[in-house]
Amino acid sequence: MERNFHGMLAKKWREVKFICVGLDTDYEKIPAYIKNDRIRQSLFLFNKAIIDATKDLVCAYKPNTAFYEKYGSEGIAALEDTIEYIRVDCSDYEVPVILDAKRADIGNTNDGYVAFAFDHLKADAITVHWSMGSEAMKPFLERKEKGIIVLCRTSNHGAEEFQDLPVVVGYNHSKKLFEIVAETVQDKWNYNNNCLLVVGATYPEELKLVREIVGDMPILVPGVGKQGGILSDVLSNGLTKNRRSLIVNSSRDVIYASSGEDFTRRAIEVVQRMNMDVYNHFDALKLG
Amino acid sequence: MERNFHGMLAKKWREVKFICVGLDTDYEKIPAYIKNDRIRQSLFLFNKAIIDATKDLVCAYKPNTAFYEKYGSEGIAALEDTIEYIRVDCSDYEVPVILDAKRADIGNTNDGYVAFAFDHLKADAITVHWSMGSEAMKPFLERKEKGIIVLCRTSNHGAEEFQDLPVVVGYNHSKKLFEIVAETVQDKWNYNNNCLLVVGATYPEELKLVREIVGDMPILVPGVGKQGGILSDVLSNGLTKNRRSLIVNSSRDVIYASSGEDFTRRAIEVVQRMNMDVYNHFDALKLG
Repeated sequence: MERNFHGMLAKKWREVKFICVGLDTDYEKIPAYIKNDRIRQSLFLFNKAIIDATKDLVCAYKPNTAFYEKYGSEGIAALEDTIEYIRVDCSDYEVPVILDAKRADIGNTNDGYVAFAFDHLKADAITVHWSMGSEAMKPFLERKEKGIIVLCRTSNHGAEEFQDLPVVVGYNHSKKLFEIVAETVQDKWNYNNNCLLVVGATYPEELKLVREIVGDMPILVPGVGKQGGILSDVLSNGLTKNRRSLIVNSSRDVIYASSGEDFTRRAIEVVQRMNMDVYNHFDALKLG
Repeated sequence: MERNFHGMLAKKWREVKFICVGLDTDYEKIPAYIKNDRIRQSLFLFNKAIIDATKDLVCAYKPNTAFYEKYGSEGIAALEDTIEYIRVDCSDYEVPVILDAKRADIGNTNDGYVAFAFDHLKADAITVHWSMGSEAMKPFLERKEKGIIVLCRTSNHGAEEFQDLPVVVGYNHSKKLFEIVAETVQDKWNYNNNCLLVVGATYPEELKLVREIVGDMPILVPGVGKQGGILSDVLSNGLTKNRRSLIVNSSRDVIYASSGEDFTRRAIEVVQRMNMDVYNHFDALKLG
């Protein structure tokens, strides 16, 4: 059966699952007792342990390619193993995989990235840069069944350097660049209704503004926890009226909750606590 | 001996070598007679043939990661083989390798991409997106001996959608976003004198403008040939007064000059013709 990112995500939201676990797996940080000198096997075994522990608690997994590319072909092989495990071995759980690859090139070259993410790795969604424009991004945008997640206002310090630049939109009137990105994705890129945006949890006001611009478009929100973002702010500013359309990512707080043998138990606790915060938020809204 | 991208490039320019060959190798397009069913080996053997034919004629090689990632870990292994061949087996020729990866993420994640490009693959330079801002890009910018090549005005149709947006810079005064990018890289990113910019050959007026902004900063110019850019326009608008600071990339026109057994001979002819155009341009300036 064909996987459909948007359908899988909608099902998770109906189950009140909003937390995505970022599989940003660093060989150096893997607990000693499951690590050996084979990088591919070690990365995979760590990911498998995290996935086995959390697969019934999350709305998605998000491996960031940088952590795998670091080890070249061996790291990419671990990424292949990991996504296959989620997709095939854990197929009953139907957890979508977001490839956090932040790719974007000119038209024909994007065919290669599309083939990598969707045909080779069989990921369900990918993160992309926007600066090449909509025409260049067609190879991504035409994959209706996939999620195309556009970086809009990123979670990092210094994101404002370019993303907040004032763009002229009329006489004596300007908007910030990230607002123009949100509007453009909403108006011109989303013709297959498969686009999402990234807005960092560390910028709750910007999240509110983007939510006003894009209506029901799903927003992926990284930066909760160690980076400083607060879950309740994200929920208040990012959820749609029907309590949907939000993917809240946590990476380091979950996968490195402990460096000991209890790391999977501690990872479960962190995700359960975040899920509980979501339930409480819904209860407080008398909508739970 | 430590390789230094900027030193290697300066030497090539002194030898009047300005042409970079893009190793955008597509398994489907490799001439049948050197192809077998092993993707890694076929990609490498094709690249090796192109490199052996052109290594004394070019200023750099530029493999684009998308063409290798398409085949996952096997493709990345071919990329590893290719860069090692240029760096080790052809070390006498001292041709720098530009990894056309168009990467950019938030700070700590960029460490992974830096490790991939510079420590694992041992490339001499990398192309990057700018939208995350200078603070996020520090892991790249701090590698003094490498080239950090920032996408400024790309060669594709539709590049203007975002890159030409008018940014407010004073009362009743605006500049285009790509001008702001060029200024920012020049003023804030280039503290180690290791930055370059990308400007497409398909936009000669924009190239002229960027050259005025960034002085002697090297500019990588893709898009000559099949994409429509004209070499003489690039030289007129992109060279600095000392006839330096330009890397003119050609990919498909060189590596797919023929689909037959004469493909290396035809590749040599194309690069020699481009080199001749450069000599003639210099002669015409009475500077040759």
